[in-house]
Amino acid sequence: MRIAALAGGVGAAKFLAGLVQEIDPEDLTVVVNTGDDFEWHGLTVCPDLDTVIYTLGGIANPSTGWGVRGDTFNALERLEELGSDSWFRIGDRDLATHVYRTHRLRCGSSLSDVARALAAASGVTASVLPMSDAPVRTRVHTDEGTLDFQDYFVRRRCSPRVSGFTFEGSERAAPAAGVLEAIDEASAVVVCPSNPFISIGPILAVPGMRQALRSTAAQVVAISPIVAGKALKGPADQMLRDAGLEVSAASIARMYRDFTDGFVLDRRDAALVLEVERLGMNVRAVETVMDSPAVAARLARAVLEMLP
Amino acid sequence: MRIAALAGGVGAAKFLAGLVQEIDPEDLTVVVNTGDDFEWHGLTVCPDLDTVIYTLGGIANPSTGWGVRGDTFNALERLEELGSDSWFRIGDRDLATHVYRTHRLRCGSSLSDVARALAAASGVTASVLPMSDAPVRTRVHTDEGTLDFQDYFVRRRCSPRVSGFTFEGSERAAPAAGVLEAIDEASAVVVCPSNPFISIGPILAVPGMRQALRSTAAQVVAISPIVAGKALKGPADQMLRDAGLEVSAASIARMYRDFTDGFVLDRRDAALVLEVERLGMNVRAVETVMDSPAVAARLARAVLEMLP
Repeated sequence: MRIAALAGGVGAAKFLAGLVQEIDPEDLTVVVNTGDDFEWHGLTVCPDLDTVIYTLGGIANPSTGWGVRGDTFNALERLEELGSDSWFRIGDRDLATHVYRTHRLRCGSSLSDVARALAAASGVTASVLPMSDAPVRTRVHTDEGTLDFQDYFVRRRCSPRVSGFTFEGSERAAPAAGVLEAIDEASAVVVCPSNPFISIGPILAVPGMRQALRSTAAQVVAISPIVAGKALKGPADQMLRDAGLEVSAASIARMYRDFTDGFVLDRRDAALVLEVERLGMNVRAVETVMDSPAVAARLARAVLEMLP
Repeated sequence: MRIAALAGGVGAAKFLAGLVQEIDPEDLTVVVNTGDDFEWHGLTVCPDLDTVIYTLGGIANPSTGWGVRGDTFNALERLEELGSDSWFRIGDRDLATHVYRTHRLRCGSSLSDVARALAAASGVTASVLPMSDAPVRTRVHTDEGTLDFQDYFVRRRCSPRVSGFTFEGSERAAPAAGVLEAIDEASAVVVCPSNPFISIGPILAVPGMRQALRSTAAQVVAISPIVAGKALKGPADQMLRDAGLEVSAASIARMYRDFTDGFVLDRRDAALVLEVERLGMNVRAVETVMDSPAVAARLARAVLEMLP
């Protein structure tokens, strides 16, 4: 049984770390958002790809969910002394990833090639693919103007009011090699509990992706990132509100209804099961707050049990 | 009284740290070799510029002479895990310098601009200039073929037999802005105790440099990097031998005789004073082994005392 997963950053990585306790990681292909990739001092930083790889490799910083466990910040400190912004916190071991990737990209490797090498070096046997090898950059339209994603997300801590998104470059971006095949050949596709606007949204914006999800024979199961009217992490709740949508798991289900067969929401939202079932989905209410690897594994098991 | 200095790496930096104890650093312009600059994972590394700036800024690693004091090597360790060579040891704080420089160069700044910024950020008030803003790369012709400088110098630890040098790019390189003026307007030009082939040689190969040294009204004083038939550091002695020259301070004096007025050699080589005087130079024999900042300052004072 092969599984494909669409993933953003921390929430997705936690779920995937649970999933690989339940299945052979070699049967898993993770398609990762690259819309929040950006250039930092001329280096290409891919926060979601790295979070997924670091987490599956067991070297992620457990307190933040991103970055490398026990990392030092000596290069960043020196860059501050040199007058550089340091609102994006890159540790020394993490910096090596970006130096390595940028150099390989400049030498002609694809982002997929580099992701494969980074995963292998971290002992990750799941396939971790960028959604596309072509650069896609999420721009956020806000009441303070149109902002680069990390400017909105990290520097301004998601405080501006959001009116929409542009995934720059997505119209010219093709899915990375293996992405459409993974969706096509999977028994199940899992949409991880990630922000639907800025984590899953850019993946769906890559031409051919949404169609592949609609047409695959695989069961597509999405996990709600909204629990009891709140995002566990990040601005998904605020974005739903800014979009005039109800802040609930049901809104997430409606955003995915054209391609989703199954939906997992939190046990705290059990009252919404009927509403989501009416969208034509098979629904389960379970614990989705992944406080421990055990909960993540149980959540993964619940998803697997929904498959025929 | 303005002083210009031609400098390589560690030996030059030690001398300059002594010199700025004796003169106002703002009266000093250091023209630094960039022939051993190279690309490391796509980053531009300038070992001599950085050694001079780190040393004058008081942050150099005192045990190696290069790199940053107390630096960590976590990025390098991670790069090793990613399968990269790590024979060139770049620490985390040092890495910040290369990330910063490479990004600014890519954004259109000149190497001089970047050197100025790096010096300022390290509290260095002397002017530290690259010999040229154009890339010059020293290639070493050896019995193992023609090697990039750092390949010869660091990876192979200077073991191949050297038959010559090419300073690639030097024929198209102009002296950096301020370099010829500094030599022209100085009261004294000091040729630091650096390797004449691979540290001072590339500087002299920049078109206009040698002529500027010949025609300046300044006293030009060179300090021998050879003491008692040996180089204190690096392969200068082996290179003299490979070139069929006597391994002595007198050979150094002969290499510089067309532009040098004064020559400082070590007290251990006092027997050579007469021989060098016969080249038409004013000669002093003093302690040149800079075991401490005090010795470096005394050496600087000896140089200053030779000026009219």
